[in-house]
Amino acid sequence: MFKKILIANRGEIAIRVMRAARELGIKTVAVYSDADKDALHVKYADEAFPIGPAPSNLSYLHIPNIINAAIQTGAEAIHPGYGFLSENHHFAAVCQTWGLKFIGPPADAIEKMGIKAQARQMMIQAGVPVVPGTVGAVDDIAAAQKVAEEIGYPIMVKASFGGGGRGIRVVDSPEELANALESASREAKSAFGQGDVYIEKFLRKPRHIEIQVIADSQGNVVTLGERESSLQRRRQKVMEEAPSCAMTPALREQMSEAARRAAQAVHYTSAGTLEFLLDDDGHFYFMEMNTRVQVEHACTEMITGVDIVKEQIRVAAGLPLSIRQEDVVLSGWSIECRLNAEDPEHLFRPSPGKITLWKEASGPWVRVDSGAETGDQVQPFYDSLLAKVVTWGRTRDEAIERMRRALSEFQIEGVKTTLELHRQLMDDEEFCAGRIHTTFLAERIKGA
Amino acid sequence: MFKKILIANRGEIAIRVMRAARELGIKTVAVYSDADKDALHVKYADEAFPIGPAPSNLSYLHIPNIINAAIQTGAEAIHPGYGFLSENHHFAAVCQTWGLKFIGPPADAIEKMGIKAQARQMMIQAGVPVVPGTVGAVDDIAAAQKVAEEIGYPIMVKASFGGGGRGIRVVDSPEELANALESASREAKSAFGQGDVYIEKFLRKPRHIEIQVIADSQGNVVTLGERESSLQRRRQKVMEEAPSCAMTPALREQMSEAARRAAQAVHYTSAGTLEFLLDDDGHFYFMEMNTRVQVEHACTEMITGVDIVKEQIRVAAGLPLSIRQEDVVLSGWSIECRLNAEDPEHLFRPSPGKITLWKEASGPWVRVDSGAETGDQVQPFYDSLLAKVVTWGRTRDEAIERMRRALSEFQIEGVKTTLELHRQLMDDEEFCAGRIHTTFLAERIKGA
Repeated sequence: MFKKILIANRGEIAIRVMRAARELGIKTVAVYSDADKDALHVKYADEAFPIGPAPSNLSYLHIPNIINAAIQTGAEAIHPGYGFLSENHHFAAVCQTWGLKFIGPPADAIEKMGIKAQARQMMIQAGVPVVPGTVGAVDDIAAAQKVAEEIGYPIMVKASFGGGGRGIRVVDSPEELANALESASREAKSAFGQGDVYIEKFLRKPRHIEIQVIADSQGNVVTLGERESSLQRRRQKVMEEAPSCAMTPALREQMSEAARRAAQAVHYTSAGTLEFLLDDDGHFYFMEMNTRVQVEHACTEMITGVDIVKEQIRVAAGLPLSIRQEDVVLSGWSIECRLNAEDPEHLFRPSPGKITLWKEASGPWVRVDSGAETGDQVQPFYDSLLAKVVTWGRTRDEAIERMRRALSEFQIEGVKTTLELHRQLMDDEEFCAGRIHTTFLAERIKGA
Repeated sequence: MFKKILIANRGEIAIRVMRAARELGIKTVAVYSDADKDALHVKYADEAFPIGPAPSNLSYLHIPNIINAAIQTGAEAIHPGYGFLSENHHFAAVCQTWGLKFIGPPADAIEKMGIKAQARQMMIQAGVPVVPGTVGAVDDIAAAQKVAEEIGYPIMVKASFGGGGRGIRVVDSPEELANALESASREAKSAFGQGDVYIEKFLRKPRHIEIQVIADSQGNVVTLGERESSLQRRRQKVMEEAPSCAMTPALREQMSEAARRAAQAVHYTSAGTLEFLLDDDGHFYFMEMNTRVQVEHACTEMITGVDIVKEQIRVAAGLPLSIRQEDVVLSGWSIECRLNAEDPEHLFRPSPGKITLWKEASGPWVRVDSGAETGDQVQPFYDSLLAKVVTWGRTRDEAIERMRRALSEFQIEGVKTTLELHRQLMDDEEFCAGRIHTTFLAERIKGA
């Protein structure tokens, strides 16, 4: 096992990873930008190393500085968290060059899954259902028109590279197609450096269901059931749960089997998530694979008892998974609410500033994974996630009751947050009845 | 279901009960002594009512004031927590007189189990193994001598009434018997108002194993496995875990069956605990029944998923238990460390004063049930328990790893606590190997 690892991230996920490391007896190195010198993740770590100015591209995304921090501190491995460099195959490869273990999948698997159009092609070959559409990128309007007519409108134009909801357009009719192609490609080029786009059938009000996979270098691939992440605001997840109300044991087994095939197709190791869309008829379609630990991994941890981050560290150290597929038991229900520093009254714009009061929920079956405390400065440079509130219950109703209670305990002052949004959601009849889909929030909440 | 309940307690258990109530949509009334007017449990409640001066006998033990608070606030039921009035059968009966539901067992069951010698007799009749000794109280030295010789030294002289480790003497030889009888009786009389004592065989280094029972008024009695509470300081529990290292499935079933018989013998309802001693040969002996929720109930909650306090409230409202015996699954391992305001360097004397810093542990599989926060005044009048730190792991080793991590996160300044004691224990080889017994702490720690 490693003696010391570096966490190339900040906020709640940096602390989450450090907690796992500390439980395994591994020393931790935090890295921090100038803006983060007093941040909680810096205080939590056994040691901390500065990596540059506040803007991400000069610090958390700046590979030489991070590699240098690892070398200087004698760290043997780097956990990238999520976001930042976590799905940068080049970074994973550079780590290897410097003799550092990248706590994540092989660079090659990241790269293959990162090119969305190529991933689609591989999934088709692996027998994983994909949304009907083009196999590869489309490069002219005539080809696009032909495909769109074949699969039928509405369709989606999507960036071949990247993610996070950018470079995506919904097209309802042939007249809109040329514009959509052009603008999606332009957005993709500016966000990800490459403008390739492809076409997919657009599903009306599908559910977003994802399968958690963990795999080791001995060839073991284990799935840990599904999560539902249908509650999204502009394709950013807001709340997640595990399991999903839409699931049956048979469907779960089909989707899990597809997820295992997908992981095996790219010789995957570490934790990863297969994202699917599920329509009302119980058909599911591969969307993409997130080749990293996800924000919402906690829900799966709560219903399986498996510490996904510890498994990542074990696997990176060459150890086998600590759990076999036949030992995975899904028990009860877990819900996660993301507390973001955003202002719901102003279209969820970021709300940086000083946190003048921060009191977390606690007690039975309430888990808070947090990266903030009273007195912290919420920086404008980074993702606005402050903390995740996670509850577990024997039933979905009980998990919701606990979440209501937990949200009633949480107190945040000084910055605007999504706390009140979550409180409202927990009282929403349709949500409580489990009738959710990916446009649920957009239909209900201004700016969502 | 109730609309409003009163919690006749303070500190962590008051908040624990209020959390359960809040999840069930029930309003809560806190009561508080003058010393507790700024206490956390007062802030947590939906409303609060003063019940008198700081000394317990003038407030938390003062039945008329508590009944008055319930009447004035319109509470329908009273949860007594643990300690204070929780095992006072008179209080349970008075509640009924005033049309208030006592959230606990019937007054009659409390009374029967409260008289230790009588409880022994009933258990013998119910076929529950008891430690060899006198059936009832012994009232003269000659009778005591005879019994002691029959069962063989060492023996214990124990108060027939009361608990909490008071009125108990270990006697190694006939010469010590007269003195022990006299002093145990005197201590019992001063502590509990009655000086009756009885004699039991003294077991060398037994384990303390207890079975959690929940029962409803429909006649359902469910056991939730065992806890081990062998780590004690002067018969006060310091740390608990569930399950126990000493348990086998067969022994668990035997002990659970005995616990169900015991509960049925007194027509028990609500939550209760059968305490047993377990010797090296796998023989177990009834010690006493705690007719209330215990401090360490959280460990059982963590491995079963059953919210014991919610079950208490349901049962008091006349509803059946929400779980059947066949649905109870024990999963993983849970450890609880009690953080007391005591000074381990000075024989664990209480350490009242102002808490100048209070930072709780958090994150994955760490549960903190707390009654304190920064700025609180730890009162000299009450029990010194500030918070319970509870961890869960798939294995005992993992629960211990998590506890080490959790204790490393906890920060308390201003008062002395048992935090460091627990840190040491988590690194104790014998503890980690599960080789514990009721004199484990006394052999290791000065003042324990």
